[in-house]
Amino acid sequence: MHNSDKPSIELTLRVYFYDTDAGGVVHNIAYLRWIEQARSELAHKLGWPLDEMVQDFCPVVRRTEVDYLASAKLNDEISVQASIVNLERVSFKVSFEIHDKKSSTLFCKALQTLAVVSLKNGKPAALPKDWRTRWPELIGQKLI
Amino acid sequence: MHNSDKPSIELTLRVYFYDTDAGGVVHNIAYLRWIEQARSELAHKLGWPLDEMVQDFCPVVRRTEVDYLASAKLNDEISVQASIVNLERVSFKVSFEIHDKKSSTLFCKALQTLAVVSLKNGKPAALPKDWRTRWPELIGQKLI
Amino acid sequence: MHNSDKPSIELTLRVYFYDTDAGGVVHNIAYLRWIEQARSELAHKLGWPLDEMVQDFCPVVRRTEVDYLASAKLNDEISVQASIVNLERVSFKVSFEIHDKKSSTLFCKALQTLAVVSLKNGKPAALPKDWRTRWPELIGQKLI
Amino acid sequence: MHNSDKPSIELTLRVYFYDTDAGGVVHNIAYLRWIEQARSELAHKLGWPLDEMVQDFCPVVRRTEVDYLASAKLNDEISVQASIVNLERVSFKVSFEIHDKKSSTLFCKALQTLAVVSLKNGKPAALPKDWRTRWPELIGQKLI
Repeated sequence: MHNSDKPSIELTLRVYFYDTDAGGVVHNIAYLRWIEQARSELAHKLGWPLDEMVQDFCPVVRRTEVDYLASAKLNDEISVQASIVNLERVSFKVSFEIHDKKSSTLFCKALQTLAVVSLKNGKPAALPKDWRTRWPELIGQKLI
Repeated sequence: MHNSDKPSIELTLRVYFYDTDAGGVVHNIAYLRWIEQARSELAHKLGWPLDEMVQDFCPVVRRTEVDYLASAKLNDEISVQASIVNLERVSFKVSFEIHDKKSSTLFCKALQTLAVVSLKNGKPAALPKDWRTRWPELIGQKLI
Repeated sequence: MHNSDKPSIELTLRVYFYDTDAGGVVHNIAYLRWIEQARSELAHKLGWPLDEMVQDFCPVVRRTEVDYLASAKLNDEISVQASIVNLERVSFKVSFEIHDKKSSTLFCKALQTLAVVSLKNGKPAALPKDWRTRWPELIGQKLI
Repeated sequence: MHNSDKPSIELTLRVYFYDTDAGGVVHNIAYLRWIEQARSELAHKLGWPLDEMVQDFCPVVRRTEVDYLASAKLNDEISVQASIVNLERVSFKVSFEIHDKKSSTLFCKALQTLAVVSLKNGKPAALPKDWRTRWPELIGQKLI
């Protein structure tokens, strides 16, 4: 398998005023918006555009774990990496790391569990068919 | 007409960390969220609940003007006042003032123009029928 | 100990348009804002106002876990409950539950770990002195 | 003067779930975040990084006017253009246009008035010295 086919993506973003708070650092909710942005671009890269999701089968976040390790600051250039790290029958996991571009400081680690559901009837649905054949090494993958 | 029937409302809110930025004051976007909160509660008070809006006829914001006059700070208790101040055939105007509860400092003034549209076909629709009979003094009202 | 002295709080909020997304339900990030609002009001109730936090000793979020169990919708009235459930030497845990006021459906459960740090030097600091005497049953409390 | 020296910028962004609401279109507040993002990148391009602003002299928004002309939707690729269009002694104006990249539909027009203030004493301060020499045609420029 080619590296470029891996279900992962990296975005480079800048910290704006609205990402920070009166404590002088990035507010904890801003990291979640960056995580969502990276996950959305990853879906796009994998051929699953957002506007198709709202037609019917849509991945929804079931669980989020975020560890805040260091504080990003105004105007920092940050890297947001997202990778699918586990495939189950009706759910999958995406892991995230947010680093400072200059110093490589790790600001934040996160893990999200998503399930595909039908927006029409609310029932769980299967993951995209080709995911299991493209990334068999991720099926049932245990996370440390 | 009874005062209590006037199409206006006042909310009391507190400034949280996520409302502020690294400049140490409330971020300009936070005022817009408070304005929207007040407008939503005003709609509710007038018997037009939000979930009914998405069935079909929904008021949408066409224009917003905001003047930022003084800076609210973390933990300030603020008053957000919203009043319908003008009724036209297919649009209406809501004015807003945001004050400090303690000092009465005026932080922010805003004016929004809204139109009712059908979410089904995107076309303009009439305002709720009883508005013109309840508040005839607002019909075609010029604003200074 | 009187019940009313327990380190917990309940807020009643309404779901506005800006809390929802094109999927027709509340967006996952909105729950985090409600959690932060409840935690801020709890701090206030416990005599630790937000504007005092930015003077020096400030509780910062180290870890967030959120389970999304059901989807809140536009105009729902929701209850957000927050309780301190664990005290360690330099950290504490707050648990959250978000329910529908009408049906009692549990939309969301969350757990946050916070540490007190000095904003001046970034170093960990002790929790407020009286917490350990007021709620000794929470010291080192294991969570299920 | 070279075109590239003009105080303007264009960003290309995508509409994510958190930009939309249960009405199925982009929420009015999301446009303000894009406007702020464009203004921040414009400041950066003009050699005025955000983290320098919080040292002392900081441009603050005094007034915002936004006209919402058409509704952007989930996954749309949009162009956000920002240009300084007027220079006064202690204030300046930035105009914005947000278009659909594919159809060129104009979603939103906005105009912001900003003033430079000292964060240390809250007093108005002069604009960056070189602005008046670089863009003399913008001094006192009347807007239609």
